[in-house]
Amino acid sequence: MLYFNCDYNEGAHPRLMEALMKTNMEQTIGYGEDPYCEAAARVIRDLCKGEPDVHFLVGGTQTNLTVISAALRPYQSVLCAQQGHIHVHETGAIEAVGHKVVPLPSRDGKLTAEQVRQTVRGHREDGAREHTPQPKMVYITMASELGAVYTKSELEAIHAVCRELDLILFLDGARLGYGLCDPACDLDLEALTALCDVFYIGGTKQGALFGEAVVITNQALKTDFRYLIKQKGGLLAKGRLLGIQFFELFRDGLYFELASHANGLAAKLRETFAELGYEMPVESGTNQIFVALPDSLLERLESSYVFDYNHPAGEGYSLVRFCTSWGTKEENVVQLIEDLRRLSGQLTEG
Amino acid sequence: MLYFNCDYNEGAHPRLMEALMKTNMEQTIGYGEDPYCEAAARVIRDLCKGEPDVHFLVGGTQTNLTVISAALRPYQSVLCAQQGHIHVHETGAIEAVGHKVVPLPSRDGKLTAEQVRQTVRGHREDGAREHTPQPKMVYITMASELGAVYTKSELEAIHAVCRELDLILFLDGARLGYGLCDPACDLDLEALTALCDVFYIGGTKQGALFGEAVVITNQALKTDFRYLIKQKGGLLAKGRLLGIQFFELFRDGLYFELASHANGLAAKLRETFAELGYEMPVESGTNQIFVALPDSLLERLESSYVFDYNHPAGEGYSLVRFCTSWGTKEENVVQLIEDLRRLSGQLTEG
Amino acid sequence: MLYFNCDYNEGAHPRLMEALMKTNMEQTIGYGEDPYCEAAARVIRDLCKGEPDVHFLVGGTQTNLTVISAALRPYQSVLCAQQGHIHVHETGAIEAVGHKVVPLPSRDGKLTAEQVRQTVRGHREDGAREHTPQPKMVYITMASELGAVYTKSELEAIHAVCRELDLILFLDGARLGYGLCDPACDLDLEALTALCDVFYIGGTKQGALFGEAVVITNQALKTDFRYLIKQKGGLLAKGRLLGIQFFELFRDGLYFELASHANGLAAKLRETFAELGYEMPVESGTNQIFVALPDSLLERLESSYVFDYNHPAGEGYSLVRFCTSWGTKEENVVQLIEDLRRLSGQLTEG
Amino acid sequence: MLYFNCDYNEGAHPRLMEALMKTNMEQTIGYGEDPYCEAAARVIRDLCKGEPDVHFLVGGTQTNLTVISAALRPYQSVLCAQQGHIHVHETGAIEAVGHKVVPLPSRDGKLTAEQVRQTVRGHREDGAREHTPQPKMVYITMASELGAVYTKSELEAIHAVCRELDLILFLDGARLGYGLCDPACDLDLEALTALCDVFYIGGTKQGALFGEAVVITNQALKTDFRYLIKQKGGLLAKGRLLGIQFFELFRDGLYFELASHANGLAAKLRETFAELGYEMPVESGTNQIFVALPDSLLERLESSYVFDYNHPAGEGYSLVRFCTSWGTKEENVVQLIEDLRRLSGQLTEG
Repeated sequence: MLYFNCDYNEGAHPRLMEALMKTNMEQTIGYGEDPYCEAAARVIRDLCKGEPDVHFLVGGTQTNLTVISAALRPYQSVLCAQQGHIHVHETGAIEAVGHKVVPLPSRDGKLTAEQVRQTVRGHREDGAREHTPQPKMVYITMASELGAVYTKSELEAIHAVCRELDLILFLDGARLGYGLCDPACDLDLEALTALCDVFYIGGTKQGALFGEAVVITNQALKTDFRYLIKQKGGLLAKGRLLGIQFFELFRDGLYFELASHANGLAAKLRETFAELGYEMPVESGTNQIFVALPDSLLERLESSYVFDYNHPAGEGYSLVRFCTSWGTKEENVVQLIEDLRRLSGQLTEG
Repeated sequence: MLYFNCDYNEGAHPRLMEALMKTNMEQTIGYGEDPYCEAAARVIRDLCKGEPDVHFLVGGTQTNLTVISAALRPYQSVLCAQQGHIHVHETGAIEAVGHKVVPLPSRDGKLTAEQVRQTVRGHREDGAREHTPQPKMVYITMASELGAVYTKSELEAIHAVCRELDLILFLDGARLGYGLCDPACDLDLEALTALCDVFYIGGTKQGALFGEAVVITNQALKTDFRYLIKQKGGLLAKGRLLGIQFFELFRDGLYFELASHANGLAAKLRETFAELGYEMPVESGTNQIFVALPDSLLERLESSYVFDYNHPAGEGYSLVRFCTSWGTKEENVVQLIEDLRRLSGQLTEG
Repeated sequence: MLYFNCDYNEGAHPRLMEALMKTNMEQTIGYGEDPYCEAAARVIRDLCKGEPDVHFLVGGTQTNLTVISAALRPYQSVLCAQQGHIHVHETGAIEAVGHKVVPLPSRDGKLTAEQVRQTVRGHREDGAREHTPQPKMVYITMASELGAVYTKSELEAIHAVCRELDLILFLDGARLGYGLCDPACDLDLEALTALCDVFYIGGTKQGALFGEAVVITNQALKTDFRYLIKQKGGLLAKGRLLGIQFFELFRDGLYFELASHANGLAAKLRETFAELGYEMPVESGTNQIFVALPDSLLERLESSYVFDYNHPAGEGYSLVRFCTSWGTKEENVVQLIEDLRRLSGQLTEG
Repeated sequence: MLYFNCDYNEGAHPRLMEALMKTNMEQTIGYGEDPYCEAAARVIRDLCKGEPDVHFLVGGTQTNLTVISAALRPYQSVLCAQQGHIHVHETGAIEAVGHKVVPLPSRDGKLTAEQVRQTVRGHREDGAREHTPQPKMVYITMASELGAVYTKSELEAIHAVCRELDLILFLDGARLGYGLCDPACDLDLEALTALCDVFYIGGTKQGALFGEAVVITNQALKTDFRYLIKQKGGLLAKGRLLGIQFFELFRDGLYFELASHANGLAAKLRETFAELGYEMPVESGTNQIFVALPDSLLERLESSYVFDYNHPAGEGYSLVRFCTSWGTKEENVVQLIEDLRRLSGQLTEG
């Protein structure tokens, strides 16, 4: 069985495993105050420029709820695209820490500066605004849940509206590497550091066993952030496991190599789907492919491939997701491409 | 200035004020354990039939957050119409006690049994359902935020789907009297008691200084409900103030008389709007009228009348709300009708 | 039966009831934005000096949880005396909005500046401080739960340590009038305004049907406070009921007259207890008397008087509380004194 | 520098690392639904007997807040010893999910059945009980924060009072192996399964990189537990990492071997301290040693050893903690013993 259903089917990149093995019996103090976390924070800070704080957490939901809980007063809400992970796939984690998530319409999982402005202005001009939650944070994802990326000018526009309206901009980068390595993306860590109040660099889906590196530039958010990590259950006792992995990922660019590897294989798949005439509703150069395939084709693929079902997409068709990852083997993609061609051919003939 | 903007512009019905005056210097124990609360609960229970628990709280948001907090486990969500008061106008009170509010599309503020079934089935059939909040409560309002009422058969259908799928049915009756006294409504307190797990009878908007009487039939919800009232800040020290008022409202039908009074005056206004050709998007026989009026007319009305602005309704028109209440004087409605006719006439001529 | 068990057995002072009657059928806008609330806030601000914000809420628990939720970030805790109302008698309302309540030892319900300093320094000097909640607010009560009052110099010392350590000082004044009118108290509203970040003036226990007037001097706390009142269910629809009552209480000093009345009657009772040789563990000139009485005496009193049982106080004795209030009649106190003398005499003879 | 400050200074036992390496490039589905988690749950269930549910979480605070949030209604509280980890060292994590933690006095971090009974009865007999949180869960730790263990009869007594009073018994086993392998302990996993509603088996401090295995026997708690894990941020994407480690720890008793190793080395240290005349306030056969040492001795030790400072222990003395662990090398203990003897001798002579 070949897995294309998500980007966390394997363990970690071998180099990370080796580093974990090599340091295994060393003794260090815990909770992320060890030299490995320090070194990892330093290499990340060097790429980000400026003086952001860098913290390491274990997973994405944990990171989202910790950051949002740190940033908002109890009556404040967070805006996101209707596909936003915090809105759709975190079991109400944000509401559980007290905040309303306000979904805005989106085709590709991205928000626009104009949507944010209109929503916030609408609230502020409402005479009864105290009767509704106050929008205070903008949550965006990159790559988005549908694989889309922001361009620099789009992100600058969102940044500008956040400054204008005193909003906090939070970028969820669970798939940040795949996003930044999309050929259409003109952003890098330095730009994100300049434009976001807080963002994170996903490790779980991009070569690590687990781990998300939170980069905070907003001074108010920096204060006491470790208290919140601890309270929300995210302060790993053996914190160095995170430091060791992120240091390995960032000391020489491995993180970006792995993302480019996945994006490249996804591009080949995308070409094949296009060539076979299947519709892909969202344009993307990242590792996720959303494509509408005939149900009859999907039935045949199921015996050899695991992919992710989304929703019906018109008569006899379903929208499905194929993911590549840092760990996807080229040979498996080649085989999938062959099978797609062969099975599609049979369907056409049939 | 004449107020038609809401149904809580005045104090309380004179009979309630007299009862408060007469008992003012009596000494009783506090927190709703006095004879007046007991008597009020008894007259309400008599109307409801069965053996529901009856509790008295001060206001609607407080009641909603207390009931929902009592009913749900942390990962469970509440379904409501997109206009639902808990979704739109309570500053995230439900999220602040930890629960996601899931709005469903609605034209008139009502839900259908079918919407509920589809939403809950969709959740239960989702392989990754643990990644999304679990729908467990259905919150409906009567009269709805747009003045609509449920018929008995509609409510029975919702009740049936709640039993089928093990959901809790909660009816917010901040405007219950106006709803029950809508000529089109074939429900009464007895029917509500049979069909809902919990509902409340609004006093604030229907003749009392303040107060909502919560009627609980669900055994699990009955347990320890007073702990929750206290914790959420809703246990009035001089609880008898609530008992005195609700006893007066229900001992001889005053509550329903007052609602019918308001509905009758609203009907006259509605007739006038219809006669003048203005559109009223929601059919209703309750005290709230939503009507699309020309902005030029609204400008002239504003100097003498207070009403509630909602949103633009096409070129040169706005949707506004006029409310009557238990305290609305017939003469004021007559004057408003005259002014509407006169000013509309001028506009037509102009 | 004569009630001395608490200070909220009656309704409201007749002058307040008259004011409510007189204004009953007036129409005003809701949610505390009416002219009566404005007038009440103005008279209170005039007594407070400075430019504090004044808000009106319905009850004490509601006020405590709203203020604390407004003031603290999620990982911050509030210090109080071990008898603190928020610690003992609010069903975990503060924990329910997410904050740990840290009780400190106290004999009389008061805190000292030195206790606060040591506790906060202890936290800050702890290498693992992120693993423990961060003390950020000091909650004090006046009169305290045991009837004690702060002197100006004691409060100045607490204020100073709060400034020094960047803590928020919150005074719960559910019984503020009784406290300020204790002959031993050299504080007034002006001093409280200068020394506290936020405090409230209790109405419920001191002449009103209900109501607590929150006075906020801290700029950060002022921001968006109405959002929090609404979210926590404390924004009374007919907010003017609060404004009307507080205006009446403060426009000419009625509030303080009523408190002095209660304190004076309590002083007479206290004299009697002392004369009969009963121990009163806390010195106080307020309306609450804690006294250790023989169980045999209490049994006889019970047939005519309601008082508040606290806890066993050595062999054959119990600590009980007697309260006077703004509504206590002198004749009832006279009768209680006679009965105490007579019954105590019988016990001695017997 | 030799670390004796805690039991999580190293990575994982080599056998676990090998298993992680060997499976690293396998593809499995995520979130703990893989075959490794299934196998690990099975070996644990076999040791527990009965049919408990077994879930794997990453860390202790996360586990505590998830279990407690799953078990309690909003107004319910949890009882623990005053040293309880949830009370002292989790930054208010339990309060942040809404529950009051009620500490009871303890000398060694253990609770007694009688304490529980008295506290709960006191609550239930209180006429104003709705004004205080309702005790519903008993949280105990084993080994306790001070290294103490429960005997079977002690735990049976606590179990009995929980059944009698309808309380939920939760045992935090962050150091469960060390506790069970204390020679004085007559409990095993089977007994815990029979006596507790829920407990967990700590991996982080006992040979794993991280991980706590939650064992649930209470039917109500089993329901929907995975929703709560996800909402609280504890559902590890690559859940198999937990399954792989716990399978390795439990397939052939490695877990208990490692704990016995640590306990044995601790016993040697304890002998030395006793021989040198230093006081150890808590009797224990586990891996933690609390001992009062002269400050002058501690100063000299500090240059070569890391240990954990607790609090002053009388003139010139401090209470400190030394921990051994699964990873402690015998040679390091030997060296510490030598240094203790030598330095103590110098102090005596000096």
